Amino acid sequence: MKKVLTILIFSSQLINAQVHPVAFATKKDLNYVVSNLKSNELLNQSFVNIKKEVDPYLLKDIDVPFPKDAAGGYTHDQHKFIYNLIFNSGLMYQITGDEKYALLVKNVLMKYTLLNPTLKNHPQATSSSPGRLFWQALNDANWLVYAGMAFDLVNNFLTKDERKIIADKAFAPIVNYFVTDQKNWFNLIHNHAVWACAGVGIVGIASDNDDYINMALYGTEKDGKAGFLAHLDGLFSSDGYYNEGPYYTRYAILPFYLFANAINHLKPALKIFQYRDSILKKALDVALQQTNISGEFFSYNDALKDKTYQTNEVVNAIDLAWQAYGYDSSYLPICKAQNKVILNRGGVDISKKIISLNYKTSSYPYQSAEYKDGADGKKGGVSVLRTGKGNDLSTLIYKYSSHGLSHGHYDKLNIQFYDKGNEILQDYGAVRYINIEQKWGGRYLPETNTYAQQTIAHNTITVDETSHYNGVEKISELNHPERLFGQTGNQNLQVVSAMDDHAYNNVKLFRSEYMIHIPGVEKVIVADIFKTFSDSVHQYDLPFNFIGTVMSTSFKYISNNTALSPLGIKNGYQHLWVEAHAEKIAPFTQFTFLNHKTFYTISTLSNDSLDIFFTRIGANDPNFNLRNDPSYILRARNKNQTFINVIEAHGNFNPVSEIAVKSKSEIKSITKIQDNEEFTAVQINIAEKQLFIIQCNNNFDDHLKHKFTTDKFNFEWIGPYYVEYDHKKL
Amino acid sequence: MKKVLTILIFSSQLINAQVHPVAFATKKDLNYVVSNLKSNELLNQSFVNIKKEVDPYLLKDIDVPFPKDAAGGYTHDQHKFIYNLIFNSGLMYQITGDEKYALLVKNVLMKYTLLNPTLKNHPQATSSSPGRLFWQALNDANWLVYAGMAFDLVNNFLTKDERKIIADKAFAPIVNYFVTDQKNWFNLIHNHAVWACAGVGIVGIASDNDDYINMALYGTEKDGKAGFLAHLDGLFSSDGYYNEGPYYTRYAILPFYLFANAINHLKPALKIFQYRDSILKKALDVALQQTNISGEFFSYNDALKDKTYQTNEVVNAIDLAWQAYGYDSSYLPICKAQNKVILNRGGVDISKKIISLNYKTSSYPYQSAEYKDGADGKKGGVSVLRTGKGNDLSTLIYKYSSHGLSHGHYDKLNIQFYDKGNEILQDYGAVRYINIEQKWGGRYLPETNTYAQQTIAHNTITVDETSHYNGVEKISELNHPERLFGQTGNQNLQVVSAMDDHAYNNVKLFRSEYMIHIPGVEKVIVADIFKTFSDSVHQYDLPFNFIGTVMSTSFKYISNNTALSPLGIKNGYQHLWVEAHAEKIAPFTQFTFLNHKTFYTISTLSNDSLDIFFTRIGANDPNFNLRNDPSYILRARNKNQTFINVIEAHGNFNPVSEIAVKSKSEIKSITKIQDNEEFTAVQINIAEKQLFIIQCNNNFDDHLKHKFTTDKFNFEWIGPYYVEYDHKKL
Repeated sequence: MKKVLTILIFSSQLINAQVHPVAFATKKDLNYVVSNLKSNELLNQSFVNIKKEVDPYLLKDIDVPFPKDAAGGYTHDQHKFIYNLIFNSGLMYQITGDEKYALLVKNVLMKYTLLNPTLKNHPQATSSSPGRLFWQALNDANWLVYAGMAFDLVNNFLTKDERKIIADKAFAPIVNYFVTDQKNWFNLIHNHAVWACAGVGIVGIASDNDDYINMALYGTEKDGKAGFLAHLDGLFSSDGYYNEGPYYTRYAILPFYLFANAINHLKPALKIFQYRDSILKKALDVALQQTNISGEFFSYNDALKDKTYQTNEVVNAIDLAWQAYGYDSSYLPICKAQNKVILNRGGVDISKKIISLNYKTSSYPYQSAEYKDGADGKKGGVSVLRTGKGNDLSTLIYKYSSHGLSHGHYDKLNIQFYDKGNEILQDYGAVRYINIEQKWGGRYLPETNTYAQQTIAHNTITVDETSHYNGVEKISELNHPERLFGQTGNQNLQVVSAMDDHAYNNVKLFRSEYMIHIPGVEKVIVADIFKTFSDSVHQYDLPFNFIGTVMSTSFKYISNNTALSPLGIKNGYQHLWVEAHAEKIAPFTQFTFLNHKTFYTISTLSNDSLDIFFTRIGANDPNFNLRNDPSYILRARNKNQTFINVIEAHGNFNPVSEIAVKSKSEIKSITKIQDNEEFTAVQINIAEKQLFIIQCNNNFDDHLKHKFTTDKFNFEWIGPYYVEYDHKKL
Repeated sequence: MKKVLTILIFSSQLINAQVHPVAFATKKDLNYVVSNLKSNELLNQSFVNIKKEVDPYLLKDIDVPFPKDAAGGYTHDQHKFIYNLIFNSGLMYQITGDEKYALLVKNVLMKYTLLNPTLKNHPQATSSSPGRLFWQALNDANWLVYAGMAFDLVNNFLTKDERKIIADKAFAPIVNYFVTDQKNWFNLIHNHAVWACAGVGIVGIASDNDDYINMALYGTEKDGKAGFLAHLDGLFSSDGYYNEGPYYTRYAILPFYLFANAINHLKPALKIFQYRDSILKKALDVALQQTNISGEFFSYNDALKDKTYQTNEVVNAIDLAWQAYGYDSSYLPICKAQNKVILNRGGVDISKKIISLNYKTSSYPYQSAEYKDGADGKKGGVSVLRTGKGNDLSTLIYKYSSHGLSHGHYDKLNIQFYDKGNEILQDYGAVRYINIEQKWGGRYLPETNTYAQQTIAHNTITVDETSHYNGVEKISELNHPERLFGQTGNQNLQVVSAMDDHAYNNVKLFRSEYMIHIPGVEKVIVADIFKTFSDSVHQYDLPFNFIGTVMSTSFKYISNNTALSPLGIKNGYQHLWVEAHAEKIAPFTQFTFLNHKTFYTISTLSNDSLDIFFTRIGANDPNFNLRNDPSYILRARNKNQTFINVIEAHGNFNPVSEIAVKSKSEIKSITKIQDNEEFTAVQINIAEKQLFIIQCNNNFDDHLKHKFTTDKFNFEWIGPYYVEYDHKKL
């Protein structure tokens, strides 16, 4: 209903005699920037940095090469360099009034009027959506966005004829290629298509082309099934969770904000920023909440771990959000870390605020939260459980979301654990050295698929050495786990539980996470109850992809001292060297490792004996693409299996003062009191105290009363779980 | 002569009715501390931190346990905790005048009067010099130093009887054990013995025991062949280079300074700080120069890489040096990083200076330097070649020193390379998790000997898979390489060359390092010419223990995808998995890796085809003690072999902005023009320019004229080498 209305409103307007600039910023906004430049140190520094980048190229001949190289190669880097250069030069023209900047933009765009009509698909194209200036169409879309904004910024410097030739010869060939040859790709709901829509829309705004704008908003058929608004509806849940995950939210947020900002200047009546209950604000906030304390985005799905909220995309999104939604103090610590602003109204206001606070801000307000996945919020989700403050923050991520498109992993019921700013249990992320030419032109490397996306690369169960959904994306896309119960409101006990009945045909997976802050002793443990159900016997492998150095184990193992071989032959197993293994280990085991300066112990109780493997990534990696990270893999063979794991941070080691404190686990034992269809009841002895966890396995009603009685115990409670420490309910 | 004189001067004095305190600081110095406490924020914070550590134990019963545990265990940690506690409590007594602090010290020392007379060798003793309170005597010596200073600080609180019983029952049993049972160890010239001398001497000062002081200064026989002065003569070269290397200088410097400070208070006429041309000042400065830009000590010999100049030992040494030698602005950046001072006159003056500078200091003035090894300066040395400023500092370490006692490595002609604060070509250091009980009680682990000390763990040549001196320390101690030529005075060209004729019976090793700063383009390369000479054919392995990720190679290699085996069976080779290898590679090869955000290429020209191995540490490591670091090993079989390697930093990769610049080497070729007994002449093409290096191989006279002429070239110069870039002499 909303969508149809929007189409009508917009289509009823004619775009004539539009005043430029309007795409990146209006003249009024740019005047506001100019009037604050002298008095505002942070703004001025941001301006000076851009000016320094542009000035060496003024009045110079700029090479616009015929496309030839993959990412990281000269022609790729040069075209990427150029679109940033001409956008910045256009901005400098508007801010300084110096026509040399406009001339630079004009000369470059004129070169593209000669080049672009001659282009066929890029010679290095390997993607299903090849580009013309670049190896993939996505990069051509980036070019449209920035070159389009540059065109808009110098519009008033150009003659009518120049505007027409640039629109027809530099931009139309790429736009037409997108909306005709690559029409299916353009009409996808996918982050690449967001860029494509933003590119076509911004070029439409820059060149007063109503048709482009409508296709950008509503798809090539202008029916709203594709296009920008369909992305706002389809890529986010109502929480603002983006189903490709935070790494790609970071990337997609930029075209969302740039195009929303442009269309908002042109058509404020569309109220694009208010669309879907301000979904773009929510999307940004959910992405920021999904960072670790030094700003790295969580690494689930295809993600590169170096990416932080200091990236250009987030600088833009925050500054545009500030302009669109107004003051939000939570952004200030991030803005301070970014230490630059963009040259628009939001950038001015943020820099004013930071200076008025004398650059003093508190930390970003990280919180526990549960995000629903799916446009309708019914495709599982991701829970982020947090405890501790500042640098002592502990974060457990529990992922029971849908697949997440082509960059998703086979990682149902996966957990990740961060502590004190460090990765403790990792998701590998993606295998890629972005834009490094030697590494396959900076593309995703084959090991992303053969290892990083496979289930064994995650801290969840692989059944019979086969990845979830047998590694078939289109089937994985159709399914998702279900959240069963949980809550994040009690600082001493945060819980989330989910079930997956689709990843394997004949095995049901049921996992519950209890993040427990033990009052009094200020200790944090994660109790992880992972149950499988099946009619037949299976091999269940549960890895803990720990980062750290092995300190000790409670069991004896056999070390493979003089020969290594891989753990298996496929589904990621072929990449794991087995460094050591242990067979038929007694059900209660402990393993301690050191990460940075903190000790961590994983204490395990299995319902039967276990095999255990210490592995290291690196087999079948002929081009040294993978990191050589370790894993600790628990293996059971059973029909119904219960793994009870307690993940515990303890003590610390100071190598400068040479003091190690509490290097040994305080978990003395884990005992199963009962584990059947009705309840799983566990006693965990921590130092001298007892912790009990009782979980309902077949009824998750929040209001139902339960009673659990044995010879020794008698517990009564309401809801699907009960946790007690030192005789007190948590 | 000097030594004899000193003995005479000192022995002629009687130590009677000494005013205490005198060991750590005099009453006058402590009054100076008190008078500055209120006005001096940094000093006050240092005071408050100590007070906070002590206060919880006032009027409490402190456990002085019977010795039982190895390092990291309770009794070890408790005795270590106690000696720090009582020293600090004694200091608090003197500064605050509150007798509760003195009472704490008295009560603890009284407990030791009951314990110490009962002690036999420690049950966990595995060292050749077992301790009594601790597993090794070294730790007992630490106890003597700190408990001795504590005793001195509370001297005026104790009755004469109390002083006597503490001297006789708490201290005498340990002192007597040292100077009788462990007499040989006490009289060694070794860092442990420095601690032992300092301990016995400080106890002597605290208890007015002339005999102890004389044994501390001159050895148990009081003949000057052992003892503190013999250490000042024997452990340092006249440059101040300490032959165990910087990691152990850091450790040994503390007892040197603490005892020198104490004896200087008692006997200023001894002029201990001026001894041997102020050798203690030189020793400190040489140690500080041997740190990387974030303060880690160079990791050659047995070293732990986490150790920085922020350790307590260096705080003490700098503050005591400031007091003894006066103002030295080079210390200020280090003092600022330490962010604390000790509570003596030096500490007050440093904190005043830092506050007056408003905590603004420049960087530590790192310089190139060549240090001679050996008390007589004739046992080879270590050259440190540096170029670049601030965070862009490049540092090449070339080690041609003597063995360095029991913590030395078989590493003749080894190089290490640091760049931009990162290790690029590493020395592994030692295998040890100090004071972590699970790791063999925090001791040196067996892999220190089986791997880290072996030649293959270093960036130098191993002949026939056998370590230098066949890994026999006592033979290695007898020999050392000879420096042949070099200079560090020209910023564009720093050179050092050395020869080793002893590490192998039948092979001579000759290596020259040229650190070249290419003017104009601000590029740094290291050209490394490594020649061997022998009458028979040998296998020469030259590893580059790089830290980083493999980016590309100029040659094809075979990857061991599905099975790994070790490179060899002994001398460290048994710890290296062969991940990939290449055979009969053409003489010119290139290998590029990424370290942090910079690319590095090793370009190699061999005089014949090479085999190449990519290895990773980890084989035969059953307790996961080793780091899994990679190596790139060049192997040649020859009589006389010449490896010409060019190590080049180039470009950078910014993963946040996704831009890779100059990811490929600029070295286009390396050509040997001549390589015979007289000259090695090399042409290196860098981008479009030519670099020539001509080295004399049989005459190293700085003043001799040379001429090198071929059909194409004609060079004339003076001295053992000539380097020319772009037709200009460097």
